[in-house]
Amino acid sequence: MGFHAAVRSRIDLPVEGAVLTMPDLPMTYERTNIEDLTPYTPGEQPRHVRMVKLNTNENPYPPAQAVLQAIAQVGGESLRRYPPPSADAFREAAAEAFNLSPEQIIATNGGDELLRMAITTFCLPRPPVGRGGADRGDMGGIAVAEPSYSLYPVLAAIHDTPVARISLCEDWSLPDDFARRVIDAGARLAIIVNPHAPSGHLEPWPKLEAIARQLVGHAVLMIDEAYVDFAVSDALPLLDASRGLDNVLLLRTLSKGYSLAGLRFGFGLGGPSLINALHKVRDSYNTDILAQTAATAALKHRDQARESWQRVMAERRRLGESLAARSWQVLPSESNFLLATPPAKAAAAAEIYQLLKQQGICVRYFDEDRLRDKLRITIGTPEQNDALLSALDAI
Amino acid sequence: MGFHAAVRSRIDLPVEGAVLTMPDLPMTYERTNIEDLTPYTPGEQPRHVRMVKLNTNENPYPPAQAVLQAIAQVGGESLRRYPPPSADAFREAAAEAFNLSPEQIIATNGGDELLRMAITTFCLPRPPVGRGGADRGDMGGIAVAEPSYSLYPVLAAIHDTPVARISLCEDWSLPDDFARRVIDAGARLAIIVNPHAPSGHLEPWPKLEAIARQLVGHAVLMIDEAYVDFAVSDALPLLDASRGLDNVLLLRTLSKGYSLAGLRFGFGLGGPSLINALHKVRDSYNTDILAQTAATAALKHRDQARESWQRVMAERRRLGESLAARSWQVLPSESNFLLATPPAKAAAAAEIYQLLKQQGICVRYFDEDRLRDKLRITIGTPEQNDALLSALDAI
Repeated sequence: MGFHAAVRSRIDLPVEGAVLTMPDLPMTYERTNIEDLTPYTPGEQPRHVRMVKLNTNENPYPPAQAVLQAIAQVGGESLRRYPPPSADAFREAAAEAFNLSPEQIIATNGGDELLRMAITTFCLPRPPVGRGGADRGDMGGIAVAEPSYSLYPVLAAIHDTPVARISLCEDWSLPDDFARRVIDAGARLAIIVNPHAPSGHLEPWPKLEAIARQLVGHAVLMIDEAYVDFAVSDALPLLDASRGLDNVLLLRTLSKGYSLAGLRFGFGLGGPSLINALHKVRDSYNTDILAQTAATAALKHRDQARESWQRVMAERRRLGESLAARSWQVLPSESNFLLATPPAKAAAAAEIYQLLKQQGICVRYFDEDRLRDKLRITIGTPEQNDALLSALDAI
Repeated sequence: MGFHAAVRSRIDLPVEGAVLTMPDLPMTYERTNIEDLTPYTPGEQPRHVRMVKLNTNENPYPPAQAVLQAIAQVGGESLRRYPPPSADAFREAAAEAFNLSPEQIIATNGGDELLRMAITTFCLPRPPVGRGGADRGDMGGIAVAEPSYSLYPVLAAIHDTPVARISLCEDWSLPDDFARRVIDAGARLAIIVNPHAPSGHLEPWPKLEAIARQLVGHAVLMIDEAYVDFAVSDALPLLDASRGLDNVLLLRTLSKGYSLAGLRFGFGLGGPSLINALHKVRDSYNTDILAQTAATAALKHRDQARESWQRVMAERRRLGESLAARSWQVLPSESNFLLATPPAKAAAAAEIYQLLKQQGICVRYFDEDRLRDKLRITIGTPEQNDALLSALDAI
């Protein structure tokens, strides 16, 4: 019966039903793709409160007072009981906020959960090696623009589905043949982050509409709008039923725009058929009663969040100009961060990252193609941004 | 390139690369197994506060005051930032509570998330039909005792992995050849709920140890201890390193024992190698700061929870005796519910369920083999249990 074939050794031997006996090697129970996986590395979360934290794109302003009050109202009786499984009150608030119906909305445990669920719902795991894998080729997976959020390929690796990487243009825009390449790769899910991270570049929605239209009948287009609250436009028009785009899924999160990264609350917006499929994959009670209550309050009091967006946008302009005045190259950003290149005469980006850290200022450095000479700087409060500029002047 | 092969119609046609054109049929983007899925149905959650709710095994007593206080302490600054990704403070509190090391613990968004993660980590998705599927047979999936928690096969269906169902004995105990049958089925993950739901039967841990030992090198044994706080013993002794069981994983939850079903907080206990594999599959920030804080407080103040366990156990005895005095057959239960059969002269279980509901009392009825003639009744407060008994007397 090939008992040992159910469990692999750490050495990657073919296990075609043969009984393997390798007593000296530790046994592992996980699937090969999990064993081989390099997990996603979250940005540093230094716990010293004094650190100027401009590395993980949190909103520098606190959440709305109404959110804190809503959390305080949740008593023991609500905690004792199971929460509403589909977060109906939140979905109604979101439907009102975005002029959609609750059937077009799914609440998730952070935007990351929606990403995972979309891959689980739409993408095909690879057949086992040597068991008919070859004839499917590298079909059925995700397509991502590169560079972008490094979690996407990690989630694909967990699901063991292929990743097609499509390079962005020099100006960080999507190549004109993006949809064609998604289709040629046989991908079933294309993920675009817009505004783009880490560049801050915004694709206008008509361009995304053209891509979605080419992909109808081939693949779902997921637009990760994690940063959209800081941008001049969003992709909501694509959900208008009159456009006939049944394959568009928008990802939103309360982490950035609503200052609630600690809450883990995201949501998906899309056609009822896509949303219904995602609901089937959702853990039965995926969002808790505290998060549902806080998230509902956050949407009902968007004005307070909107104020923070305006302050961030104003500081984004000021910080960008201040860096440019110091001969940094700063990309135009529609997000709550700047991707900036220090001048050739200054220290290298990696070195500046280290020197800033020694001074208690944390920014993000990516040791990756196209990013090695740059730093990604989250927009902070005026005081935090001034601290950064002073530190740079001192370096 | 078989563009349309990436998307299936609602009719289950083979799609061997052929270009299908069926304009009259709605297209679907999800995988076949998701399209075909019958989702898990959570127990009813009536929102009228007056309902006597004895249907979803919630603890009838409120969570500890210390938990509510801990939640109240979480301010805007903590909500604004990303939470500790691995819930380290909670894992340290759990390590202390259970005399383990933090490396043996993983925190999850409810116990359900741990179930899903275990299946993702250890079980093999089926190869696509007609593409080498036959030669793997029905290997690589989960094995479950039947009947048990109906979520297990739903999660397996989402992952598209086989389910081997092994019937429990007449007295709801595990058959002596359980491990052998798990191995023969080629399952990589056996899931046992202990105390068992919906019967309340407890397997003593030495029996589970014998099963785990037979499964070493073949499959992970996951013991779902969702109800263990109401039992006389648990399976923690199996984690003692001296036993050499590298394949045991315990599931715990704060939903029942700690009166925190609304919080969605579960955790896994096991050897560092299993736990490490699960961490790789975990969403990067799977538990939020409010839940982490509340869960940590709950474990640090277990005495208050323990008091509720004792009250539930006392009421379990009283309710069982009261039902027996009314000629009901009541199974001995080590959990916070009773599985009880009304006497032949009374109405059928399904009818009693309906009649109780009309009187504002909600219990659980399963239209399934071995359960059709029974009701599962969650232990409530003395007042709730009295209300149930009075209603039964009136029927």
